[in-house]
Amino acid sequence: MPAKSPVLVDLKFDPAIVAKALETAFADRGSINLADPTSKSADLSHVDYALLWKPDADLFQRARNLKVIFSGGAGVDSMMSVAGLPDIPIVRFVDRSLTTRMSEWVVMQCLMHLRDVQGHMRNQRQHVWAPQHGPEAADVTIGIMGLGVLGCDAAAKLKVMGFNVIGWSRGKKQIDGMETFDAGGLDAFLARTDILVGLLPLTPETTGIYNASLFARLHRQSALGKPVFINAGRGKSQVQADIAAAIRTGILGGASLDVFAIEPLSADDPLWTLENVIITPHDSAVSEEKALMRHVEEQIARFERGEPLQHLVDRSRGY
Amino acid sequence: MPAKSPVLVDLKFDPAIVAKALETAFADRGSINLADPTSKSADLSHVDYALLWKPDADLFQRARNLKVIFSGGAGVDSMMSVAGLPDIPIVRFVDRSLTTRMSEWVVMQCLMHLRDVQGHMRNQRQHVWAPQHGPEAADVTIGIMGLGVLGCDAAAKLKVMGFNVIGWSRGKKQIDGMETFDAGGLDAFLARTDILVGLLPLTPETTGIYNASLFARLHRQSALGKPVFINAGRGKSQVQADIAAAIRTGILGGASLDVFAIEPLSADDPLWTLENVIITPHDSAVSEEKALMRHVEEQIARFERGEPLQHLVDRSRGY
Repeated sequence: MPAKSPVLVDLKFDPAIVAKALETAFADRGSINLADPTSKSADLSHVDYALLWKPDADLFQRARNLKVIFSGGAGVDSMMSVAGLPDIPIVRFVDRSLTTRMSEWVVMQCLMHLRDVQGHMRNQRQHVWAPQHGPEAADVTIGIMGLGVLGCDAAAKLKVMGFNVIGWSRGKKQIDGMETFDAGGLDAFLARTDILVGLLPLTPETTGIYNASLFARLHRQSALGKPVFINAGRGKSQVQADIAAAIRTGILGGASLDVFAIEPLSADDPLWTLENVIITPHDSAVSEEKALMRHVEEQIARFERGEPLQHLVDRSRGY
Repeated sequence: MPAKSPVLVDLKFDPAIVAKALETAFADRGSINLADPTSKSADLSHVDYALLWKPDADLFQRARNLKVIFSGGAGVDSMMSVAGLPDIPIVRFVDRSLTTRMSEWVVMQCLMHLRDVQGHMRNQRQHVWAPQHGPEAADVTIGIMGLGVLGCDAAAKLKVMGFNVIGWSRGKKQIDGMETFDAGGLDAFLARTDILVGLLPLTPETTGIYNASLFARLHRQSALGKPVFINAGRGKSQVQADIAAAIRTGILGGASLDVFAIEPLSADDPLWTLENVIITPHDSAVSEEKALMRHVEEQIARFERGEPLQHLVDRSRGY
């Protein structure tokens, strides 16, 4: 029996956490961690599998005989533009923990806007006792753009909390208990949406999709007063100048942003200080390294038993 | 057929909202609103029904022939100490909207402590980009004290969000899918609890129950670092000086308080400014007046058809 191929690892995460996870991962085959200086000039031509997040520009020149690529996150846009990406299966990271944590963040942000946490905190800082009689979840419709694993999990949990939930995806999806819209129904979807939750992958079609024109088409008679924009998908899907302008002019009543076109967000960016804008540093759902390694081990085992890989990227759609 | 008795209303809520709701409520029998100056000296001896929240001290002397009392809220402690409370059925306010709104607040506060919203907001104010890798809901156990309608609804929703949930009530309750403890199991319950959620009614036994001794028995190896105390029940169940001391000494890592022994909370109270303490002005679940009137109409109709009243207070327990 030939030796099993090691797993090539090029994850631009916290190097110490990756190294720690690799101590016990892939015990039957080993790994080559490009963050390790001794791997800088290693021969990668014999490697079958690569686990990647924002890989080196020359990665696919060095590892020329890959059979499967694994993404270190739910999205794959960080590798789609790297030169020489081979036409082989790409497996996205789908994980219970990643999904759960994203839904924690999304549900929390929706509740924080519903219950005006920013207004309450302003009152608290001034020691002001001012009870509010705002709307309840049932008075508010949340529109989710992106109906993959993350969007569907968030939708189910938001419904349990009492919100009305509708969904949008480029191609029509049938989802039990949720009204859904496709590309042609975008205007109708936006006209019903009080809180827009962005969970779209980054593709040429979704680049800059959250812009002034889209914000202007959101529901204007929201029980919250004004519509709210929440993005936990990809930063390059939003036009940040348009978000800032929409907040300033009252087109949007608030926003929660976990992702940005350029990260980290510059310290002098106006988004940090805008009223009712909540900034989190792309930590809504961090890939947990041990769960990631387990997932890759499971998929490699399936592949080597001749079973189909799961969570495959559709190259024609780009996600 | 004798004329139907009007409903006596003495609700220390926003007078304008009560008056507005009474314009359309009780259309078949009318109402006597004690907030209305013309009612100050009205004869109340013929009235069968009273809808009360913090009633006048002489209310039961004036309305001597009541058949049923309806509470304006989920709790009834505001009337239990009023002189001359007659030994007649007392119906608490149980309402879908009230329950839903309380669970919104409880789930949101639990998520805000899980995801360190206070730390994120401190970073945002300083324009600091610092991703966190905190625990997920499955790493945290929430202990709910009080397993009535509100406690059970919050428990179910917290479980959907991924938290471990355990429950405590004075008498043992069997609840599907949740481990529960009774009076004798308080220490065992506290030793497992990372986030304590208080939803107890106010009785002599629960007065001051959330105190230094109780906080010291919470789980010390929490994935959150330190235990958290959340109270949306009654203010007099908590010893506020003990909460402040526990935060300052690190016995508690945070708190969310919606209720206080004296409301409004005094502007010079130290709780307003303590690190990781979130103050809301007793608006976690405000009685919605129209829903309250509908509920009373429904219960009166049941009573006059000879059907049993629902949501009755057990006078021997005081709730």
